[in-house]
Amino acid sequence: MDIKSYIAEKGKKAREGARRLATLSTRIKDNALLSMADALEREAERLRLENQKDIDAAKKKSLSPALIDRLTLNEKRIREMAKGLRDVAGLPDPVGEITRMWQRPNGMQVGRIRVPIGVIGIIYESRPNVTADSAGLCIKSGNSVFLRGGSEAIHSNRAIAEVMVEAGSKAGLPDGAITMVDIVDREAVMEMLQLDQYIDLIIPRGGEELIRTVTANSKIPVIKHDRGLCHTYVDEYADMKMAQEICYNAKVQRPGTCNAMETMLVHRNIAAGFLPGMIDRLRKGGVDLRGCPEVVRMDPSIRAATEEDWNTEYLDLILNIKIVESMEKALRHIETYGSRHSEAIVTNDHPRAMSFLREVDAAAVFVNASTRLHDGGQFGLGAEIGISTTRIHARGPMGLEELTSAKFIVLGDGQLRE
Amino acid sequence: MDIKSYIAEKGKKAREGARRLATLSTRIKDNALLSMADALEREAERLRLENQKDIDAAKKKSLSPALIDRLTLNEKRIREMAKGLRDVAGLPDPVGEITRMWQRPNGMQVGRIRVPIGVIGIIYESRPNVTADSAGLCIKSGNSVFLRGGSEAIHSNRAIAEVMVEAGSKAGLPDGAITMVDIVDREAVMEMLQLDQYIDLIIPRGGEELIRTVTANSKIPVIKHDRGLCHTYVDEYADMKMAQEICYNAKVQRPGTCNAMETMLVHRNIAAGFLPGMIDRLRKGGVDLRGCPEVVRMDPSIRAATEEDWNTEYLDLILNIKIVESMEKALRHIETYGSRHSEAIVTNDHPRAMSFLREVDAAAVFVNASTRLHDGGQFGLGAEIGISTTRIHARGPMGLEELTSAKFIVLGDGQLRE
Repeated sequence: MDIKSYIAEKGKKAREGARRLATLSTRIKDNALLSMADALEREAERLRLENQKDIDAAKKKSLSPALIDRLTLNEKRIREMAKGLRDVAGLPDPVGEITRMWQRPNGMQVGRIRVPIGVIGIIYESRPNVTADSAGLCIKSGNSVFLRGGSEAIHSNRAIAEVMVEAGSKAGLPDGAITMVDIVDREAVMEMLQLDQYIDLIIPRGGEELIRTVTANSKIPVIKHDRGLCHTYVDEYADMKMAQEICYNAKVQRPGTCNAMETMLVHRNIAAGFLPGMIDRLRKGGVDLRGCPEVVRMDPSIRAATEEDWNTEYLDLILNIKIVESMEKALRHIETYGSRHSEAIVTNDHPRAMSFLREVDAAAVFVNASTRLHDGGQFGLGAEIGISTTRIHARGPMGLEELTSAKFIVLGDGQLRE
Repeated sequence: MDIKSYIAEKGKKAREGARRLATLSTRIKDNALLSMADALEREAERLRLENQKDIDAAKKKSLSPALIDRLTLNEKRIREMAKGLRDVAGLPDPVGEITRMWQRPNGMQVGRIRVPIGVIGIIYESRPNVTADSAGLCIKSGNSVFLRGGSEAIHSNRAIAEVMVEAGSKAGLPDGAITMVDIVDREAVMEMLQLDQYIDLIIPRGGEELIRTVTANSKIPVIKHDRGLCHTYVDEYADMKMAQEICYNAKVQRPGTCNAMETMLVHRNIAAGFLPGMIDRLRKGGVDLRGCPEVVRMDPSIRAATEEDWNTEYLDLILNIKIVESMEKALRHIETYGSRHSEAIVTNDHPRAMSFLREVDAAAVFVNASTRLHDGGQFGLGAEIGISTTRIHARGPMGLEELTSAKFIVLGDGQLRE
């Protein structure tokens, strides 16, 4: 069978599976998730053997140690995957919730009820745990999942999917609930992106190149999980101690994440009091600093930031610092360079806090808190499938509710259109 | 300037306009809508003169009378456009509503606030009133609108947009709030669909060919307003009088619309009692009938329906009738042939009503009411920009709320990521 027919056939089955999944009881879905979790732990040895093939291939191709680490499935990571599935089983089922109901003058009741989206395609890279995490969230929210992982994790992904499909089937999931496209060929992705009759949403998880390719070629709506170039603005009315803690946390706690701070903006009126201690602390944390001319004048050992620096998502222990003469200037800087992901202000001035919240265009806007808190778990949404940077459907962490949509229901007693 | 640069420049301005529009007060937006309404009426003569050019061109190209009718702007239609804008001005502003707020164990408050989507691209055909209607809804919901109408209405659309832009500017709308792409060349649409850095959502309004082209070529998320192949299922426990009224209304009241019924499904146990009266009434209403073999046996003057008939959105006074032996069979027929737009059941049996509501996959599902009621105004959403058949963001009528999205806001007092 050629790739096109192979993908189309899998898509058709996923669509059929989605129809059955949509009306499956919470109990069956939860039992299936728990069975899949048990099966992953029971089959840990098989998973590790398959994973070893991927690691050997990666070493042969001299892939970076960081990539090989991300690829590696050890016992702890397998336990984490299983725990993730159990956590999702414990979350409330979003499907079937009537979110609103109202009466019209003609007496009919109109309402909105949460329903699954249908078939969700996930296109991702390297980390094999995405296979289990995505499948768990999609199944719980009543969606079929159509997975296409990276070629470097093909053996691991295939094994995880097989174990989950086996356990899920036994627990009552329909055929087609979980589909793994295990064709390494890039054409498989291209074909998948054309299947708008079978796949309702594509979520790419990976680097910028992957996201660009998917967006440019998909006939199916795409919700992107794109880069985060995040700022913290320390206002002149900030509590300096709090500001130092928040900025340090936002930069240092885990610099490789999309919600870490890349640029700190400091109001001029507080700069002389705030910056020396802050700079000292950041340096002790191993942070390489770059500054605007005014910062460099204040501390000539800091390198001057270039236009490119303001535009860079470092994902590393590097930070730009800029002194601004007003909150207005901070807002303009964020508008120009921010990636609309996570933006924070530290201030004790209420009107400034409120106008920052209102005016800043980002998936999440913070007052007096670290941008690192931009996360489904931290926000109380339970697990998340990622952080959306698309401007429709859902912005920010996508949990179970964001993997659903709503249909209208109408209860009448003979209403007609006049 | 070439088309690519022309479109990109307009896109950039629309993005800048959107940033300013997003924080504009309700009062300024409403005043602008009212000024635009007044201006359209004041400039009625200018609009009619420009419209005449389109009509002359259409006649020269021998376009169909129906199309020329849709194209025509008479005084009544201009008044309706103005009234539409005034109605939208009277609706509540969705922007800034905090839809939920909750506290986390670490003390931070997390909430969601409604924000505009940004720049909305509308690609549409023939009816020039779409220019005013779309612009009104987008402006009220804080979005810039990027309009591209059909070449056959180019003079009318350009004139309407000019009048609105002039009046809107005077009333305080930012530059770029309303953009009309008045290049007839199809390349202009193609360039527009690539502008994902400036346009956030594309809504195509028109025939299947337009929707296919847009979906296949857009890098920007598309919300489709696609065809409606709608059914009404008359259950064995239906009130026969009510069922007759509902089916007659769903087919005859305005057959050319996407929410009109195309196929009627009738439970076998009620067929002999229900169908003769129903068929008689439909025939008197001028409806051409096609039936399944059982219907044809009952009334040999009815033509046998073909596989193609079950799959056709007639948009005309034509109806397929099928007798089903169970509700289950009705559900399977709807699943196979329905376009997931509007589906109805007529029954007095509560469990059947509930399972139909739950199980049928459509943007709107009706119990004991006509599918013709599937409409933003009827549902109480105020005006609508169309009926979405896409499965993310919004299904069914898209009113002002559906032209917004939500960002997260976090109010902290020094919270950090542990």
